[in-house]
Amino acid sequence: MTRTELYKLIRRKESFLCVGLDSDMEKIPKHLLDYEDPVFEFNRAIIDATIDLAVAYKPNLAFYESRGMAGWNSLEKTIQYLNGFKNEVFTIADAKRGDIGNTSKLYAKAFFSGTYAAMNFDAVTVAPYMGSDSVTPFLSYPGKWAVVLALTSNKGADDFQLIENEQGKLFEVVLKTSSQWGSPDNMMYVVGATQAATLKEIRQIVPDHFLLIPGVGAQGGSLEEVVKKGINKQCGLLVNASRSIIFASQDKDFDKAARSEAQNMQVQMRKYLNEFCAL
Amino acid sequence: MTRTELYKLIRRKESFLCVGLDSDMEKIPKHLLDYEDPVFEFNRAIIDATIDLAVAYKPNLAFYESRGMAGWNSLEKTIQYLNGFKNEVFTIADAKRGDIGNTSKLYAKAFFSGTYAAMNFDAVTVAPYMGSDSVTPFLSYPGKWAVVLALTSNKGADDFQLIENEQGKLFEVVLKTSSQWGSPDNMMYVVGATQAATLKEIRQIVPDHFLLIPGVGAQGGSLEEVVKKGINKQCGLLVNASRSIIFASQDKDFDKAARSEAQNMQVQMRKYLNEFCAL
Repeated sequence: MTRTELYKLIRRKESFLCVGLDSDMEKIPKHLLDYEDPVFEFNRAIIDATIDLAVAYKPNLAFYESRGMAGWNSLEKTIQYLNGFKNEVFTIADAKRGDIGNTSKLYAKAFFSGTYAAMNFDAVTVAPYMGSDSVTPFLSYPGKWAVVLALTSNKGADDFQLIENEQGKLFEVVLKTSSQWGSPDNMMYVVGATQAATLKEIRQIVPDHFLLIPGVGAQGGSLEEVVKKGINKQCGLLVNASRSIIFASQDKDFDKAARSEAQNMQVQMRKYLNEFCAL
Repeated sequence: MTRTELYKLIRRKESFLCVGLDSDMEKIPKHLLDYEDPVFEFNRAIIDATIDLAVAYKPNLAFYESRGMAGWNSLEKTIQYLNGFKNEVFTIADAKRGDIGNTSKLYAKAFFSGTYAAMNFDAVTVAPYMGSDSVTPFLSYPGKWAVVLALTSNKGADDFQLIENEQGKLFEVVLKTSSQWGSPDNMMYVVGATQAATLKEIRQIVPDHFLLIPGVGAQGGSLEEVVKKGINKQCGLLVNASRSIIFASQDKDFDKAARSEAQNMQVQMRKYLNEFCAL
C-alpha cells in the first residue's frame, strides 16, 4: 500500500487506529478454546467487529511464535484473512527483526513476498542496532514498509535510546541517519505514546514520515497529547491499541466490547483529522 | 547448560567451534530435495559429520521463518535432534529478538521452555536497542543464556554501534550497562570476527563473559587474531562458521567436506586451548 493509498484509507474510515493483535491464548475468552484454532477465531471476530473503525492491524509475532507451529498457523490464517479485505487494511508484522544484510533479505522475503509462507504483510517492524544493511532489504519491495524502532514506550528505552552524543540523542541519530536510507514512502518509525513530550523534536527531524505509536491505552499514553504534537497534514500517525481493545471483555460479547473501545478512539480521531489534516 | 559445563565440553572436544545452520534451501545439495524435509536431512547430516568437532550449533531463524510452517517444522526437528545429544552440544537460536518486557517474556518462553513449541535452546541472540526489560526476561531460566549484540560483523555496524558519547562508544555502553543485568553465567555477547581489533577493549569491559564470534570464514575474519585478542582462561569464545563449513561442497559428499573444514578449525582450536586456557 502506498502512502497516498494509506492516507485515502485513513480519510475514508476517518480513523488512524491500528489494532494490535497481541492474541494471548491465556487471555482470550474461554468459550473459544473449543474451536480448532482459538486464536484465529478470536482474531477473526476482533477484525470483523472493528474493520470499519481501524485502518491497520498489527499481530505481535511473539504471541504466535511462542505457540510454535500451531501459532505460526494462526498467524498465516490471520494475515490471509486480513488480505481478503483488499485495500481496506494496512497490515504490520510486529517482529522487531534486524540482522546482517543477507539475513535481513530473508526476513523481508518471509514477511513480504508470500513465496513460501502465506504471509504478505504491508510492513514489518525493524530494530536499527545493526545499521543500514539490516534495514535496507525491507525497502526494496514496492508498496512495502520498514517500521524502524526510534523511541520506544518501555522502561528500558532510557538505557540506550536517550544517550547523548555530538549529533543528539541516540534515537535522534537513528532518525537522521536511517531516514536517508529510504523515504517517507517506504519507512515509518515507532515512537511510544509515553514519549509524546519528544514528538515535537521528532517531527523536526522527520516531518513527513508516518509514526507508529504504541502505548495508548493499557500502557498509559494520551491520544490527545500524541495528536497535538505528532500529527501532520497527511495524518502521519498510526496509533496502536492492543489490550485495551482486544481484551475489553473476556466474555462472549468480547467482540462488541472491542468494537465499543475502538469506536471511542475513532470518534476522537475523526475530530482530529478534520481539525488538523488536508482533505 | 552452565558455564562450567560449557567449558568442560570445550575441553572434552578440544574445540570452541559453533556451526551456523544457515541452511538455505537454494544452496543445499540438490539430491536432498527428494526428501520430505530436505533442510532437516541436510542439518542432520551436517550435525552427524561434525558432532565430535563442534561444541555449539546455531540455526539462523531467518532461513527457517522464510519458509513458513515448513521451515518452522524443520527448525523444531533440528533442535529436537540436537537435544538428543544430551550434554554434548550447546544450542543457540540466532533470532536477534528484543521487545518490551511482556513480549520478550513470550519470546523467552518460545525458545527456552518447550511448553508449546518443541524448542528448547540453550541460548537466544538478543538485540539491545530497547534496553533492560527487553533482555532480562531471557535471564530468568536457569542454565539458559541471552547472547546480546555488541559489535556486529556487518557493514552497517558502523552506523550506530561506534557512535561516541561521554561513556565511550555505543557498543561499549551496551557492554557496560547490560553486563549489570546478568552475569557471565547467563549472558554472552556477539562480537564480529571482523572487529577483532577491538577485542582488547571489549575484554577490559567483560573479561569473563563468553563471546559469540561470527564472521570467521566466508565473512573474512581471522581465527588467530580473534583468539590472540579475545581468549580467556576459561576460553570465553564460541567461534561461529556457517557457509564455509556447511556449504564446503554442494555434492553428495557435502557432509565429508563439512567435516574436513570443521576439522581444520578444530585442530587450530586445540592448539590455542592448550596454549592459553586453564585445565
